[in-house]
Amino acid sequence: MNIVVINPNSSETMTTDIRNAAERYAAGRFQVTVLPTPGAPEFIDTFEDRALAAPGMSAIVREYGDKADAFIVACHCDPNLQLLRELSSKPVLGIGEASFYLAAMLGDSFSVISTGVYSNPNKVNLIRSYHMEQHFVSIRNPEGEGGELERYIRAGRRCMEEDGAEVIILGCAGLCQLAEDMTQVLGVPVLDGVVCALSIAEGMVHAGLKTSKFRYYSAGK
Amino acid sequence: MNIVVINPNSSETMTTDIRNAAERYAAGRFQVTVLPTPGAPEFIDTFEDRALAAPGMSAIVREYGDKADAFIVACHCDPNLQLLRELSSKPVLGIGEASFYLAAMLGDSFSVISTGVYSNPNKVNLIRSYHMEQHFVSIRNPEGEGGELERYIRAGRRCMEEDGAEVIILGCAGLCQLAEDMTQVLGVPVLDGVVCALSIAEGMVHAGLKTSKFRYYSAGK
Amino acid sequence: MNIVVINPNSSETMTTDIRNAAERYAAGRFQVTVLPTPGAPEFIDTFEDRALAAPGMSAIVREYGDKADAFIVACHCDPNLQLLRELSSKPVLGIGEASFYLAAMLGDSFSVISTGVYSNPNKVNLIRSYHMEQHFVSIRNPEGEGGELERYIRAGRRCMEEDGAEVIILGCAGLCQLAEDMTQVLGVPVLDGVVCALSIAEGMVHAGLKTSKFRYYSAGK
Amino acid sequence: MNIVVINPNSSETMTTDIRNAAERYAAGRFQVTVLPTPGAPEFIDTFEDRALAAPGMSAIVREYGDKADAFIVACHCDPNLQLLRELSSKPVLGIGEASFYLAAMLGDSFSVISTGVYSNPNKVNLIRSYHMEQHFVSIRNPEGEGGELERYIRAGRRCMEEDGAEVIILGCAGLCQLAEDMTQVLGVPVLDGVVCALSIAEGMVHAGLKTSKFRYYSAGK
Amino acid sequence: MNIVVINPNSSETMTTDIRNAAERYAAGRFQVTVLPTPGAPEFIDTFEDRALAAPGMSAIVREYGDKADAFIVACHCDPNLQLLRELSSKPVLGIGEASFYLAAMLGDSFSVISTGVYSNPNKVNLIRSYHMEQHFVSIRNPEGEGGELERYIRAGRRCMEEDGAEVIILGCAGLCQLAEDMTQVLGVPVLDGVVCALSIAEGMVHAGLKTSKFRYYSAGK
Amino acid sequence: MNIVVINPNSSETMTTDIRNAAERYAAGRFQVTVLPTPGAPEFIDTFEDRALAAPGMSAIVREYGDKADAFIVACHCDPNLQLLRELSSKPVLGIGEASFYLAAMLGDSFSVISTGVYSNPNKVNLIRSYHMEQHFVSIRNPEGEGGELERYIRAGRRCMEEDGAEVIILGCAGLCQLAEDMTQVLGVPVLDGVVCALSIAEGMVHAGLKTSKFRYYSAGK
Repeated sequence: MNIVVINPNSSETMTTDIRNAAERYAAGRFQVTVLPTPGAPEFIDTFEDRALAAPGMSAIVREYGDKADAFIVACHCDPNLQLLRELSSKPVLGIGEASFYLAAMLGDSFSVISTGVYSNPNKVNLIRSYHMEQHFVSIRNPEGEGGELERYIRAGRRCMEEDGAEVIILGCAGLCQLAEDMTQVLGVPVLDGVVCALSIAEGMVHAGLKTSKFRYYSAGK
Repeated sequence: MNIVVINPNSSETMTTDIRNAAERYAAGRFQVTVLPTPGAPEFIDTFEDRALAAPGMSAIVREYGDKADAFIVACHCDPNLQLLRELSSKPVLGIGEASFYLAAMLGDSFSVISTGVYSNPNKVNLIRSYHMEQHFVSIRNPEGEGGELERYIRAGRRCMEEDGAEVIILGCAGLCQLAEDMTQVLGVPVLDGVVCALSIAEGMVHAGLKTSKFRYYSAGK
Repeated sequence: MNIVVINPNSSETMTTDIRNAAERYAAGRFQVTVLPTPGAPEFIDTFEDRALAAPGMSAIVREYGDKADAFIVACHCDPNLQLLRELSSKPVLGIGEASFYLAAMLGDSFSVISTGVYSNPNKVNLIRSYHMEQHFVSIRNPEGEGGELERYIRAGRRCMEEDGAEVIILGCAGLCQLAEDMTQVLGVPVLDGVVCALSIAEGMVHAGLKTSKFRYYSAGK
Repeated sequence: MNIVVINPNSSETMTTDIRNAAERYAAGRFQVTVLPTPGAPEFIDTFEDRALAAPGMSAIVREYGDKADAFIVACHCDPNLQLLRELSSKPVLGIGEASFYLAAMLGDSFSVISTGVYSNPNKVNLIRSYHMEQHFVSIRNPEGEGGELERYIRAGRRCMEEDGAEVIILGCAGLCQLAEDMTQVLGVPVLDGVVCALSIAEGMVHAGLKTSKFRYYSAGK
Repeated sequence: MNIVVINPNSSETMTTDIRNAAERYAAGRFQVTVLPTPGAPEFIDTFEDRALAAPGMSAIVREYGDKADAFIVACHCDPNLQLLRELSSKPVLGIGEASFYLAAMLGDSFSVISTGVYSNPNKVNLIRSYHMEQHFVSIRNPEGEGGELERYIRAGRRCMEEDGAEVIILGCAGLCQLAEDMTQVLGVPVLDGVVCALSIAEGMVHAGLKTSKFRYYSAGK
Repeated sequence: MNIVVINPNSSETMTTDIRNAAERYAAGRFQVTVLPTPGAPEFIDTFEDRALAAPGMSAIVREYGDKADAFIVACHCDPNLQLLRELSSKPVLGIGEASFYLAAMLGDSFSVISTGVYSNPNKVNLIRSYHMEQHFVSIRNPEGEGGELERYIRAGRRCMEEDGAEVIILGCAGLCQLAEDMTQVLGVPVLDGVVCALSIAEGMVHAGLKTSKFRYYSAGK
């Protein structure tokens, strides 16, 4: 089994972080191919960033069509997800989508901790597009002074205490280690989207599931 | 890894069907323990059936608490799912819930084929309780003359042609073989809930995910 | 006319409180039979509590089937309401449901004051299950120091002043006296669910209304 | 106890029908004062009809303010309901609203049989304004040849068989007798809104409930 | 082209303010006829105010039926909008409705600044009736000390900084100048409903669009 | 005033049709610049078509940034609308969005007639993304034998008679003449999206409205 994880940006550092998280999850049970997107910006933030990433992401899906058993879009805003589903008959998962569905099966309410204030309204709209808004209680950003873990934990605690979040989702890719450390400290599930998407994709491949090519993702055929 | 699959009824035949489907999915990668529910009715249909199944289902979760890595409720109406989540810190998945979420990642619209007309309104309410109604286009029952496969295929075709369904969900447990045969004939994903739930649960266990014990499923603690 | 009020727990104290409230409402116009649930826990809080109460509640409905004109489930989380509707052709009302509908006819917005923080997410989900979330503005718990009335009034005032609540619902059974005292002090309707359910049930019996036995509550027949 | 039932139109025939239905329900337990609306049209159909009825309806509420214990708006489109609530501290109920809430407590799904096609979209919007659309399965009109009862029964049967309606609501005032006859024939609850509203209002008066005068219905005070 | 702007109240001062705003927008491109409503209260606040305004508003539409190309209801609670649409085949726009739709095309989220606390729940219900609640983030009132502009700007800043509003709507008619001044200071679109409605109506007239006279606004024909 | 109308595909024929419709609406009051999209496919149907059109559409907005007073995306699926709003401070309107909002102001219910079956589920999702689904009653395709007008009229009649549509929207760009002819025959408003968007944009420009550059469309600044 080979799951191709597409990092929609071109950052090698971020690709490495995602690769480490993915390989740690895969643990040798299957192969993961983690790729940056050629021609994409260093970070996916704006609507233009997503558009600029589309050609490179499409090229990866076309190139790996036969070799991949599933694809994962490793950016928490799920850019170009519908486009890639149209291009492939293999399962294609977004890490945002996967994290919301898993959160809804592990608790009744979740919060998202997102890296920057700018992306907050995008995240809320994304959650609504998956109809998960009744499980969603808040979006917060890392806060206060100190290191990354400390600032995320501070935000996570407020999600729990002030908003009643039972599960916390990290709104960025490649934060696998942070998720594990936060889970230890906070005592509630803290989800990294890459792991969420991989865990669903692995099962889908074992089950032989494919993207439906009837109507919506059929490319007009 | 050991995933305990609870058949909420007491039927040995149905338990065997579910066990076969589960072992076929597991394919030796992990152990599945498929159990009928002691003291439950032969078939889960009514609200009383669900209530009668609760004590036996609870007993299984309590008994297998340490030995199981995840639990699956193998009836497509997801009876007592919240109760079992409260009783366990392991992931607990319903096959209805799992089938709706996977369907929404494989296509834009799905139909459910349910065994009997009586359960149709229950199914619609179940789909709404998971907020998946915007992906749901119809519920149908096996129709016309002939064998089971033939009657399901006839219903499936109408789901596709009249309702626009891109994915079809079988609204009962243990129909794994039927799902595979229908997928071959209809050319769209046909989902058996047991396989759906197992495929998510397997990944959750690999990812080390647990049910949140903060608030909703905390049993008041 | 005889309305059977089922206290889903086994507490005799709480049963007495509910009986007093019910008889005060009935005022001799009709008979109320208020019963604790045999085999149920002392208090209904968790999902397991609800499951444990189901057999005793069912037994009451079966035993009083002919003698009762209507049944009321006197716990504000409406446990096993659908089950009891299935078992009886008489009207069966939950005190949560009744309080939300009456509140929506007496004002545009309501708040719920619930006894403990733990039950808050359950209450929100309950309100959503009746589609009353657009009238719902907040859930609060008794707050600050002092006696019960004082602490409820403090919460009630905040519901009005900070959340704009026009009607206040007490999220527990048997708080009839408290509701009256709060109404006096706060000047807005403060609803006790037992009184709400009795007031609807009394009218339903006069109107000769029955639970529909077609499909959803037909027990599969 | 005196419940004032306002027929929003000026038809004496319809007023008499409503009076008969109301007195039959009241059965001497309380007084009903059923009044046509001075200056209103003979039938309430259009938005202008509703506006023309407003002054007369307001005048009735002002005149009977002290003498009435509750008011009922006896037209199934609930015209000027919010206005009257603003004018009175007594409970004010619409027969549409009351019928939808009672239907949702007697079954999982209801249909409305409305007198004319023209009012169908109004009815659907009304149901949505009370958030009852998830219980609503269809609106139909009396159909085919024959007498009134026969034509309503034909529509009712289709609501049950084709749409799955478990409860049927008559979408006009003063059809009390028809509701009873249909209940006999169809075997499911068939609701007349006047009876529904009276049955809730009677209980509200016994419970001492009042319209909230805080904010929404406070007339700006 | 002649657009008739109906001020639903009888205040000459407010009519003058609206006329100035309207003529400034029209800028000689078309004629605006701005009229107070005969027989209406000085200010439209309560449900009764709206009912009292209905006859005069209807009379204006009837009188100007041939001479007008479109009508605008210049009160931000859109009183009697459906009634006037029923009475005319010309486009009839409410300034509330127009402001919400334009806001949703200029940003992802909007807040409303309303003159008085009393009207806040009405405004929220109005926004819901147009299904714009997912774009709506808050309602605030002018706050603090100082002149009108200063107090509105203070509220507007909080809408932006605390609620994330990208567009601000002034919840009253005739605040055109204020809207322009606020836009300058705050740097986001601040909308006056009269200008919004006029800008849509002008285009509708150029496009030859008319109110549909089939079903809902057909006056029963 | 110069409104730039972007035809997201590269078809010169379609561009000409759109230009004719746009100039006919503008009627010399303002300038319209109608442009095909360089590098885009001949027709926009699939998700990939939309992605392929993004660079060319962005280039047009960048090039015309100063010269344009507003932009219109002239494809009824509103491709890349959010992207273009991010790139410009001028109003940017989609013809789908504009047609849904105008329809909701001209009637209570609308249908869409779409050119091909394939795009039906896309259209339904688009309508939901603007929260207009409660006004939406059906989507149909031109049907039967004969010329284009005849086949559209046949579909339109069914929208009215079977679905109750009060307004009909043509789900493609450049069908201005067809819309006028259908309006004549059917007697209800039949909307062409290009005219709808132009009519709103013209007013927005006169009102001096701009896209908010705070948060959602700020490109991260």
